[in-house]
Amino acid sequence: MGSFAIGIDLGGTTVKAGIVAESGAILAQHSLDAHADRGPEAVLSQILSAIGTLREHPPVGECAGIGIGAPGVVSLDGDTVRHPPNFSGWGEFALASAVARAYPGRVRVENDANAAALAEARYGAGKEHRDFLFVIWGTGVGGGIILDGKIFHGASGGAGEIGHMSIDKSGPRCNCGNLGCVESYVGGRYLSARTAELLARMPEAGRHSAILRLSGGDVRKIEPATIARAALEGDALAREIMEEAGSLLGVALASALNILDLDVAVIGGGISASPQFVLDAVLESIRSRVLEAHRPHVKVLRAALGNTAGIIGAASLVM
Amino acid sequence: MGSFAIGIDLGGTTVKAGIVAESGAILAQHSLDAHADRGPEAVLSQILSAIGTLREHPPVGECAGIGIGAPGVVSLDGDTVRHPPNFSGWGEFALASAVARAYPGRVRVENDANAAALAEARYGAGKEHRDFLFVIWGTGVGGGIILDGKIFHGASGGAGEIGHMSIDKSGPRCNCGNLGCVESYVGGRYLSARTAELLARMPEAGRHSAILRLSGGDVRKIEPATIARAALEGDALAREIMEEAGSLLGVALASALNILDLDVAVIGGGISASPQFVLDAVLESIRSRVLEAHRPHVKVLRAALGNTAGIIGAASLVM
Repeated sequence: MGSFAIGIDLGGTTVKAGIVAESGAILAQHSLDAHADRGPEAVLSQILSAIGTLREHPPVGECAGIGIGAPGVVSLDGDTVRHPPNFSGWGEFALASAVARAYPGRVRVENDANAAALAEARYGAGKEHRDFLFVIWGTGVGGGIILDGKIFHGASGGAGEIGHMSIDKSGPRCNCGNLGCVESYVGGRYLSARTAELLARMPEAGRHSAILRLSGGDVRKIEPATIARAALEGDALAREIMEEAGSLLGVALASALNILDLDVAVIGGGISASPQFVLDAVLESIRSRVLEAHRPHVKVLRAALGNTAGIIGAASLVM
Repeated sequence: MGSFAIGIDLGGTTVKAGIVAESGAILAQHSLDAHADRGPEAVLSQILSAIGTLREHPPVGECAGIGIGAPGVVSLDGDTVRHPPNFSGWGEFALASAVARAYPGRVRVENDANAAALAEARYGAGKEHRDFLFVIWGTGVGGGIILDGKIFHGASGGAGEIGHMSIDKSGPRCNCGNLGCVESYVGGRYLSARTAELLARMPEAGRHSAILRLSGGDVRKIEPATIARAALEGDALAREIMEEAGSLLGVALASALNILDLDVAVIGGGISASPQFVLDAVLESIRSRVLEAHRPHVKVLRAALGNTAGIIGAASLVM
């Protein structure tokens, strides 16, 4: 008789909860729109209610506990969530203790990127690799570091912030205050804005652009997925933009692999669903930049678990 | 009765050996010109001869073993040195085993930057900090990462290569093949060359330059120490160059502190002996760039052990 665990993926828009078997399979799933603007107590009751719903029809076996992936910095003891971005009125909140008061047993919170990295390490693209850099390439750029199959936390739990590595000391100012952060070049929101700007500056090309057509003619509706689709249709500008983005991401990843002494990058997040030529551009860029000792071994892998990595990784924390 | 250990600092020009007490004090020291161009067996006999000399007058107490700091990547088991730069005909060599055959007991090899980092962690500027980034700012830029008082090795022993973080994706080509590595801006050899170039391009300023005067009028003799001295004498160009170098080093360190989740940088190496305003420029640059969570805690400390860190750190490996 196997065991299972409950995994919660706490996001700014959705609270996703699932029952996860030891095999990594999701046996049941339940989602709620997150009350991210109502403070930690409101989110806590959403989490408790989702757990309650899942426990109405428990699978056969023993429940190993409850794991939660949350945005922001999570204390090293797996209890407190600090200033999660996109959640208001939060400050610091001892989330695991609060959940354990309602459901006694093992409860552990982890940063959401780290949880997803752990899922890829145990069940996904990182299964064959003890050590890798996990990259979340979506609206922003985040990450997690897996060493010897375990999450590497750094000194206080915040390690893996690869989005805020500067790739140009005189580059554009990022939200974080730094100049030239890789996120401000290749994060989805910046990629969309830069493409819109580019098209606005070249009205003739714009008129024939597959990017614009696929966005219904509205530059505000350009998304990385639209650009990628246009590239697949043969749109040269779209291909150039996505290849350049892959190449720029590779600049930061090469520095990260150098300093961490890693050979493998597993790329997840929305933009990782881009066509293979984008991931090839990432790999080529890393290969041309990383230290010679790494060059023959460098791998860029697409994450395998998609947006279930959060739930699976959260459950993995207690399994 | 305390114990002691023998520490060897293997460099491209000098083999330094010492007897180090548990307190970190060097009780005896012996140096040889390194036969770096004669292959590993020749270097091995130098090491054995240095150990022999030190053991002629051993201190009171028990010898805990022999530690060796070596350039290049060292295997995680502390035995094999791979392709040490500036040593020819080396390849891979199981140095610890070879030394242990002559002197049975505990013998351990570690990368030299990591050994120096460990010395600063136990006896130097990092004593009060469990976690820090150690930076060697000299001819090149290297480093080591101390987490929880121990060396962080990464996947295969090469972690801490902060010199080859790119701070400008389109910057000058570094020896390593990458573009815009921070080493190619602030490494001593580049700093000297850029200063020489700068002076050549402005002959009027050059004539009154304290840098040139302190270098005996020979641009090929410009060294970071000369530039720093000229800055202290009030030479504006010299001050600008050294401040800019500190600031550029800070760009890479901010990225490194972000990804590793660290607050403290301990700076050693020849250029760390520069006047305080240079280290202040490093700190200011990091502070203006690092993620907000780190900003109030960031510290830049000057390494305390100077060029004895290698011997002390090597001995620490076995104490």
